[in-house]
Amino acid sequence: MKLDIDQANQTAIERMMTSRPILKTVARAGDVIPGLEEDLLLHAGPPIEWERMSGPLKGAVIGALIFEGKAKDESQAAELAASGEIRFAPCHHHQSVGPMAGVTSSSMAVYVVENQAEGDGGGNLAFSNLNEGYGKVLRYGAYAPEVLDKLHWMNDTMAPLLTRALEVSGGLDLRTLLAEALHMGDEGHNRNKAGSILYLKLLAPHLAAVSKDNAELAEVLRFLGDNALSVLNPVMAACKAMADAAHGVEGSTVVTAMARNGTDFGIRVSGLGGAWFTAPAATPEGLYFSGFTAADANPDIGDSTITETTGIGAFAMAAAPAIVSFVSGKPRDAIEATLEMYEITAGEHRHFTIPPLDFRGSPTGIDIRRVVELGVTPRVNTGIAHREPGIGQVGAGLVRPPIEIFEQALLAYAEKYSL
Amino acid sequence: MKLDIDQANQTAIERMMTSRPILKTVARAGDVIPGLEEDLLLHAGPPIEWERMSGPLKGAVIGALIFEGKAKDESQAAELAASGEIRFAPCHHHQSVGPMAGVTSSSMAVYVVENQAEGDGGGNLAFSNLNEGYGKVLRYGAYAPEVLDKLHWMNDTMAPLLTRALEVSGGLDLRTLLAEALHMGDEGHNRNKAGSILYLKLLAPHLAAVSKDNAELAEVLRFLGDNALSVLNPVMAACKAMADAAHGVEGSTVVTAMARNGTDFGIRVSGLGGAWFTAPAATPEGLYFSGFTAADANPDIGDSTITETTGIGAFAMAAAPAIVSFVSGKPRDAIEATLEMYEITAGEHRHFTIPPLDFRGSPTGIDIRRVVELGVTPRVNTGIAHREPGIGQVGAGLVRPPIEIFEQALLAYAEKYSL
Repeated sequence: MKLDIDQANQTAIERMMTSRPILKTVARAGDVIPGLEEDLLLHAGPPIEWERMSGPLKGAVIGALIFEGKAKDESQAAELAASGEIRFAPCHHHQSVGPMAGVTSSSMAVYVVENQAEGDGGGNLAFSNLNEGYGKVLRYGAYAPEVLDKLHWMNDTMAPLLTRALEVSGGLDLRTLLAEALHMGDEGHNRNKAGSILYLKLLAPHLAAVSKDNAELAEVLRFLGDNALSVLNPVMAACKAMADAAHGVEGSTVVTAMARNGTDFGIRVSGLGGAWFTAPAATPEGLYFSGFTAADANPDIGDSTITETTGIGAFAMAAAPAIVSFVSGKPRDAIEATLEMYEITAGEHRHFTIPPLDFRGSPTGIDIRRVVELGVTPRVNTGIAHREPGIGQVGAGLVRPPIEIFEQALLAYAEKYSL
Repeated sequence: MKLDIDQANQTAIERMMTSRPILKTVARAGDVIPGLEEDLLLHAGPPIEWERMSGPLKGAVIGALIFEGKAKDESQAAELAASGEIRFAPCHHHQSVGPMAGVTSSSMAVYVVENQAEGDGGGNLAFSNLNEGYGKVLRYGAYAPEVLDKLHWMNDTMAPLLTRALEVSGGLDLRTLLAEALHMGDEGHNRNKAGSILYLKLLAPHLAAVSKDNAELAEVLRFLGDNALSVLNPVMAACKAMADAAHGVEGSTVVTAMARNGTDFGIRVSGLGGAWFTAPAATPEGLYFSGFTAADANPDIGDSTITETTGIGAFAMAAAPAIVSFVSGKPRDAIEATLEMYEITAGEHRHFTIPPLDFRGSPTGIDIRRVVELGVTPRVNTGIAHREPGIGQVGAGLVRPPIEIFEQALLAYAEKYSL
């Protein structure tokens, strides 16, 4: 039988688009993420060992080991991390995603998203940790006491309340939320302002109904409402659920994961199994917070490119003209970004539509053939981490993956399918 | 001294733009609105007597009289309204505004907005009733038992909680909220989706902190969150506060009120004192709810055009491309609407900026000279009420005021200033 690549790609993006990711609950990572044992730390991006990890990823590993009570301080933690007693694995190997460093350990609370798909390929679960907000945060490699205090508050106070609220909610439909947020100036990756307050709006009555302590409730409502990235992590888990549904379609050249560990940028392709294609990550170009410059920037890091993988983020930037004040450029650049991405994608999203483009569906399903043929790599919106561990975010901007990884993938594809 | 009209207009719009409307509290209308005695009903638009009132305004008057316990049913209420025992006055004569019928009686809870201006002309208060949400509602002329039940719940349950929450909040800055909502796809009049959940986000922690009954709290959070017009009424009071600050500038040709009572469209002008210039209101063109057609539509009604008066609503429509699915047209029409309004306005807003137009300030301060000279009337986004009392909303669309009222105003201006 002749290989119909276009047909395989349509199957893949159809599975992506008919996925219906429902936020079901918040649970302890070790209880729900398959294979997440106590000696394992998940991290963003493709596989990497301690020695090659960048500053922010090392910082987050140190923080997680202190958080877990496995180390008392930075030096103990670094020693333990280097000892071989701790294993590392990509979040992506465990149905998970995490923004920036993405470090997730067994005691941490995580969102659980279930894909209640309308078509084939559903039923899968995906996971993501909770968003910490701004300032000094673990995901940007900070691990000072206040960072860990906040993580403990999130785990011990906010997470149980979220669990009970989500239980009585019956689950939140994240595809609907995302579709609405794209009509409210979000692109779903770097700009989740609307999505985060839509999320708050959906949760608030349930939180009120289950709370037994209104001072605590007020604190949780304020934390979720003030953090314009509150919904980023549920959204990432939703995108992971959609991308995983599209993975494993024989003959498909559609990208089903793009992820960076701060050192390498890696992709996986629907028809190419579990293989990662990797090359050194570039450093984003963007706007820096006061006191920082490009010299402080770590190379691109995080699993949040799962958003671009499923047709939002930089791919839906035309929906979010106001984002340019955060990542640089003019509103017209946001339109151009989306228009360019139609050139390298297999279809247009049925649910994610872009009002300024006459409600055209967002460009969805990166086709490695087109990337290589046109020499146009995917666009990515991203935060920028400081290159040293322990510091945090220094800015936000735009970046692209190295084209070599698409070339490698295409070669592997030609080999596997004997083209 | 020579009359410098342009200078007078700059003074007027400067006062409009340096106004800082703060939502201070919710209170009983009769306790805070100057002159709102028990025998007085406030209504939208320019002055009108019972006999000339349109169906939806009559319906809202009937509902308010039953709500106040002054009548037992429709026929008693209609008789009382016609008897001369009840006085009617525009909301605008009492520092107030109300959407659609705008009927406000002394027992109703109202928002209190204080203009903490940075420049001249501040310190004024403005008022608006609470938004009832969708379906059968008083403001569209419905007065069935469930309409009045909801009003009583709003008055007796929600309002006291809002009062206590606003008290501990210290006041909410509505100009900042509006500026943010315009970057999230709202235009602030017909589309207040983002503004309403920003409002919920600001209120929620305070509501939680003051609530003593979490079932009630959950109900209030759900009501505010599910109503994408929750913030319309505070926003209208904010616009009224800004417009009033611009009123009374000697020699200014800037419009400081546009309002419709369902029969007449009226305007007031900064340099022309309390005079109204009126003509029959047109019927909006737009999209109708299932089961209704243009034949059901009442002429244009409501004080909500105070939004267009202060540079938002249809004037900022370019910020809200998704609104066209509600009011008709294409996203490009939304851009054109705003661009056209620059032709008839005295300036560009310093705080209300429009991302798709490269963050250009919204067109602000309608100049009656330009309207008449160019024959371009202001654009208005609006809901559409059924022409009969007791029914409710039948659609949403676009409308313009009759040009005669601008011509009348310009003649009056020429006479007053001996031009």
